[in-house]
Amino acid sequence: MPAMSTIHPTTAPPLECLFEPRSIAVVGASDNTERMGGGMVLRFIQDHGFSGALYPVNPKRQRVGGLECHPNLESVPGPIDLAVLAVPAAAIPGVFAAMPEGHVRIAQVMTSGFAELDEEGADLEHEMIAAARAKGVRIVGPNSVGTANLWSGVVPSFSQFFDRTGLTPGEVALVSQSGAFGTAILAGAEQAGIRFGHFVSSGNETDLEFCDFGRHLLEQERVKAVCGYIESVKKGDAFVAFARRAAALGKPIIVLKVGASQAGATAARSHTGALVGSDTVAQAMFDALNVVRAADGEDLLDLARMFARTPPGRGRNLAVLTHSGGAGVMAVDAAEAGGCAVPPLPEGLAGRLADMLPAFATIANPLDMTGGAAFQGKLMADCMRAMLADDAYDAALLCVNLIWRDGPALMNELADIAASTDKPFAVSWVAPEADAARLLRDAPYPVYGDPARTARALTRRLVFDARCRALAAAEGDDDAPEVGPDASLALDGVAAQGRVLAAFGIRLPGERVCADVAEAEDFRLGKGVPVALKVASPDIAHRTEIGAVVTGIDDGPGLARAFDGVLAAARRHAPEARIEGVLVQEMVTPGLEVLIGVKRDPVFGPMVAFGPGGTLVELMGGVALHPAPFGVATARRLIAGSRLAPLLDGYRGGARLDADGLAETLSRVSHMAARRADIAELDLNPVAVLETGCVALDYKFTPRQVAP
Amino acid sequence: MPAMSTIHPTTAPPLECLFEPRSIAVVGASDNTERMGGGMVLRFIQDHGFSGALYPVNPKRQRVGGLECHPNLESVPGPIDLAVLAVPAAAIPGVFAAMPEGHVRIAQVMTSGFAELDEEGADLEHEMIAAARAKGVRIVGPNSVGTANLWSGVVPSFSQFFDRTGLTPGEVALVSQSGAFGTAILAGAEQAGIRFGHFVSSGNETDLEFCDFGRHLLEQERVKAVCGYIESVKKGDAFVAFARRAAALGKPIIVLKVGASQAGATAARSHTGALVGSDTVAQAMFDALNVVRAADGEDLLDLARMFARTPPGRGRNLAVLTHSGGAGVMAVDAAEAGGCAVPPLPEGLAGRLADMLPAFATIANPLDMTGGAAFQGKLMADCMRAMLADDAYDAALLCVNLIWRDGPALMNELADIAASTDKPFAVSWVAPEADAARLLRDAPYPVYGDPARTARALTRRLVFDARCRALAAAEGDDDAPEVGPDASLALDGVAAQGRVLAAFGIRLPGERVCADVAEAEDFRLGKGVPVALKVASPDIAHRTEIGAVVTGIDDGPGLARAFDGVLAAARRHAPEARIEGVLVQEMVTPGLEVLIGVKRDPVFGPMVAFGPGGTLVELMGGVALHPAPFGVATARRLIAGSRLAPLLDGYRGGARLDADGLAETLSRVSHMAARRADIAELDLNPVAVLETGCVALDYKFTPRQVAP
Repeated sequence: MPAMSTIHPTTAPPLECLFEPRSIAVVGASDNTERMGGGMVLRFIQDHGFSGALYPVNPKRQRVGGLECHPNLESVPGPIDLAVLAVPAAAIPGVFAAMPEGHVRIAQVMTSGFAELDEEGADLEHEMIAAARAKGVRIVGPNSVGTANLWSGVVPSFSQFFDRTGLTPGEVALVSQSGAFGTAILAGAEQAGIRFGHFVSSGNETDLEFCDFGRHLLEQERVKAVCGYIESVKKGDAFVAFARRAAALGKPIIVLKVGASQAGATAARSHTGALVGSDTVAQAMFDALNVVRAADGEDLLDLARMFARTPPGRGRNLAVLTHSGGAGVMAVDAAEAGGCAVPPLPEGLAGRLADMLPAFATIANPLDMTGGAAFQGKLMADCMRAMLADDAYDAALLCVNLIWRDGPALMNELADIAASTDKPFAVSWVAPEADAARLLRDAPYPVYGDPARTARALTRRLVFDARCRALAAAEGDDDAPEVGPDASLALDGVAAQGRVLAAFGIRLPGERVCADVAEAEDFRLGKGVPVALKVASPDIAHRTEIGAVVTGIDDGPGLARAFDGVLAAARRHAPEARIEGVLVQEMVTPGLEVLIGVKRDPVFGPMVAFGPGGTLVELMGGVALHPAPFGVATARRLIAGSRLAPLLDGYRGGARLDADGLAETLSRVSHMAARRADIAELDLNPVAVLETGCVALDYKFTPRQVAP
Repeated sequence: MPAMSTIHPTTAPPLECLFEPRSIAVVGASDNTERMGGGMVLRFIQDHGFSGALYPVNPKRQRVGGLECHPNLESVPGPIDLAVLAVPAAAIPGVFAAMPEGHVRIAQVMTSGFAELDEEGADLEHEMIAAARAKGVRIVGPNSVGTANLWSGVVPSFSQFFDRTGLTPGEVALVSQSGAFGTAILAGAEQAGIRFGHFVSSGNETDLEFCDFGRHLLEQERVKAVCGYIESVKKGDAFVAFARRAAALGKPIIVLKVGASQAGATAARSHTGALVGSDTVAQAMFDALNVVRAADGEDLLDLARMFARTPPGRGRNLAVLTHSGGAGVMAVDAAEAGGCAVPPLPEGLAGRLADMLPAFATIANPLDMTGGAAFQGKLMADCMRAMLADDAYDAALLCVNLIWRDGPALMNELADIAASTDKPFAVSWVAPEADAARLLRDAPYPVYGDPARTARALTRRLVFDARCRALAAAEGDDDAPEVGPDASLALDGVAAQGRVLAAFGIRLPGERVCADVAEAEDFRLGKGVPVALKVASPDIAHRTEIGAVVTGIDDGPGLARAFDGVLAAARRHAPEARIEGVLVQEMVTPGLEVLIGVKRDPVFGPMVAFGPGGTLVELMGGVALHPAPFGVATARRLIAGSRLAPLLDGYRGGARLDADGLAETLSRVSHMAARRADIAELDLNPVAVLETGCVALDYKFTPRQVAP
């Protein structure tokens, strides 16, 4: 039985009024309870046992669903916590226009035919939101199949999924940008024994959007995980705040985001654009913010089951137990691929396990208890108890096959462990017989079929928990660095751009933009090292390709030839380009070459890209993205997680390079990106990482207009 | 009802005697039919309706299972097609020793306690195989839970899975190196409605091994796919032949191979070793040979369902139909990620579909038929018929959600399409109600839950079929190139190694190993280009790191300094090294630098590695492996599939590089690797790909001893 509605004051926030309303009005209620409309919504609210005040609204009826019917919202005794609107689209703005201010706290607009249909619908949607705002009413939808809080029996929805009673609420919440797919997830979950307590079909999100619902649900004590079906993230800031709060609470956001293949379709014009397709950025945000991405709907349910039925893990060391070698190897493969370790047995534990098991058991991790154990639930459970009790392990995974006759005994043991351990464990149970399968669906611990699938789910739980701790530890790691006075200079020309970089503490080679050969030769002689010459022009992006760069110049005649050469090449290939002179740079003996880039994403704002440098970068991949700004600790994590990390450590007898200096530079670039809204893109490529510090050998800004 | 055993001559091959025996003797048969032993095997053979002659053998019994019992094999009227041995391990060699030659065609040894247990067991296994060979008997096992041919009711097994009757045979076969996991797969398959017709638990594979069974099963007309659970591939040659035959027949080998994480554990000493861990090699072989690798047990069943219930596809263009937008996007994401295209609707087809569907349907690919279509099975089916009938599409994927009431009508329509189309199609059906789910399990077309999962399975079918065609087209593309007389020179010193490379047509920079400065200066002046100096020593692997390489020398004094310098560096860092002089090389202006390597795998023999060159290669990944030898067409495919391909095409305005020349070089290296068994490893790194041809700028052989 659902609990009674919670009592809350009239001034309760709108989302509290949505999920815990004391009163609901259904505008468009009718006695047709089989069609997707107000009649069906009213019936579902009644069927699921809503205990507050319920008001059908329909000018053509006296009574609906056994209740007195009101001709309009105004005649319903207010204030109304939740008004459900299921009348034709054209009538909706008028409903808001007619209501007194303060009469309705939140409106759930189920009608479709708005912006999702055509231009006219979009205009109607604008009209509706303006009318609602004028009355201080927040909106869910339009084009929503409804919402549900099964804990309180509040089901204002016409999704066919709710055309039943007896649904047991659970600790998982779902917010879906697709009504149909959201409903499909709920239905799949119910068949799989995974219980959702809250559901929102967010529709067109004309007002309240994904993150608003998610933030509210996250704060509910009963909610252990918020799942989302996302087609697009609309408000980057809100998403970041939502995800940060989730990580702080240790509750996961599990998202199924579609549209990955469209990244390919939006192959961008500039090369940095090609790195940063929209799904790529979303994935980078998920990585940075510890949002758990599901591969598909079934994977989402696997994760929901894991987070609902396990406590958080304290580390990533996994114990694996099997009665068949192959299953253990599969689990280990998947666990290691997912970022967990499967460390060997400590000596004392090995001895204890050997005492418990037959002589031909494999006393190791994975522990092969041998086929005979399959018929001894107590023995398997005792082995798992022993491994979970050891500090060497943070979690356990038990693989069993079939066990048709002795399943119940094992299940009892496992339920006992679940009640007594504070470590997560999961069970892979391949092909249980039908009765056992039904019981396992509802077990107080997570059960899957395939061992690899089980390991993937458990591994992601442990990795999520570890990242929550790491994010908490890095809290406050985003203090802006001190910058020089040039940090605010306009990005006007190559020389000014160089001064801006220097002001942010980004080291450049000694250089001067020279007007003539004499000035260049003077610079060269002053440095006493070989120099490179590059045409200085804000209009030429890729100088090397057009022959406007000459390197390794170490004498006067060579310099004179090169000076003329780069200018000639520039004029030949880009006759319209503004030419400021020739940039003469001291040549730095490169250590490791990396790329540091900035790209401004329309949703998430400035992102920093980091990866291998040189011309191969875009094609070789391995570029990581992180939202700006971030501090040195985060930069270190980015570097440590990249394929470049081993190279910094002194590769093949080379010198150890300055990873800390690189982290410092990455963080400084991120702060520049965050502060300078006029940077659309920036390419520092290559940046040479040296034994001490690092030097940006080339840079290319793409400025953008910013409203003052 | 299983069919009657096929009649075949006494001289039938052993595997025919295994799967279609006219007579079976069970040595160790008893009346204990509940314990895993001969009694259970006899019962299962009887229960599953074996129609041939069945002989229990047990010296202590007169009758077993209602049949006359024989005291030993010799007293059974021969020849016996199949002898099942389920007596203690120690007794097994004696069973072979006692039997007359020709009396038994094949023996299935179920007993464990051989090589899998300990050294003593291994000795016993050697004794057994020697005794069996002496009598001309082939062996399945030992340590096998048995085999099955459900088509003929032949089930000599004691796997608990077969403790039932009424199993319907199907077109999928399974060979498993793990009895327990193999059984688990069968059980999972049965619950999922996927029917296996043949099963082999190959046990220790002391004689007949994975590929022997697979090859035989592949040739059975009824078998559409051979699934395998593999812990290790034992015979590389046999595996290659097996896979080639499968591709030629267009039947997939679907493998679940465990042990991927052990690649990490076997981190090799030499850097090339690190590239080529054993699982990496296995994966390369699967890629090269078009073997389909399953991610886990459930994935294996997904693939088995797909291949059993669809005809081969003629291309990779997929039509996607939905009644909910989100599902379509998920399917498209997965299809494109898997290598299929989802091309737009041809104009005529678009018009026809628009005529069939409501105005607010999305007439595109994916086709969104809108929620209303969910209640019109005929309409959805007609849209799919229209798309499948169009030449623009090679296959179709229909996504449906729920459809609890109108499911049967849609299923009838789909069955009708399956019976009439020659193109593959698959259905994603999320959360069908229980009755529908039971019907869908057994539908004549493949049905899955999640849309992405469905797309992944269908995509792999289409990619497999396309690769079968590509492999057939490349047939014969492995003619050895003409080689020079030096091709057989011993790999004795740097100079000889260079001559061997040259003899195989691998271009090297102009170079000479010089004994003194004068000879080096003479070489430099003769070439008229800058040169590089490198110490010439068979004992020094990484010359750059120890300062034994100097580049860019273009004058006499510089050459003299460098000559002394590299020798001094070599003597300082490797005082024991044999020094042959100093290698003077003309410097090639590098185009694109790639790596070409050779590594000899203990199972699969010589492999060629190909990827980005320079010092970053091992860390940046992107190295492809292919078994040697291969022809130019295969090399072109390798190049086209690599991340280097766009660079060869003229990247960022650079020149178009000689991809054909690179393919030629790759093929030549592969032939050298295949012919020269004395090459353990070879590193050509970097190889400069130029506008015409390519040049190996550095090479490092690791020779090995070869028995004459």
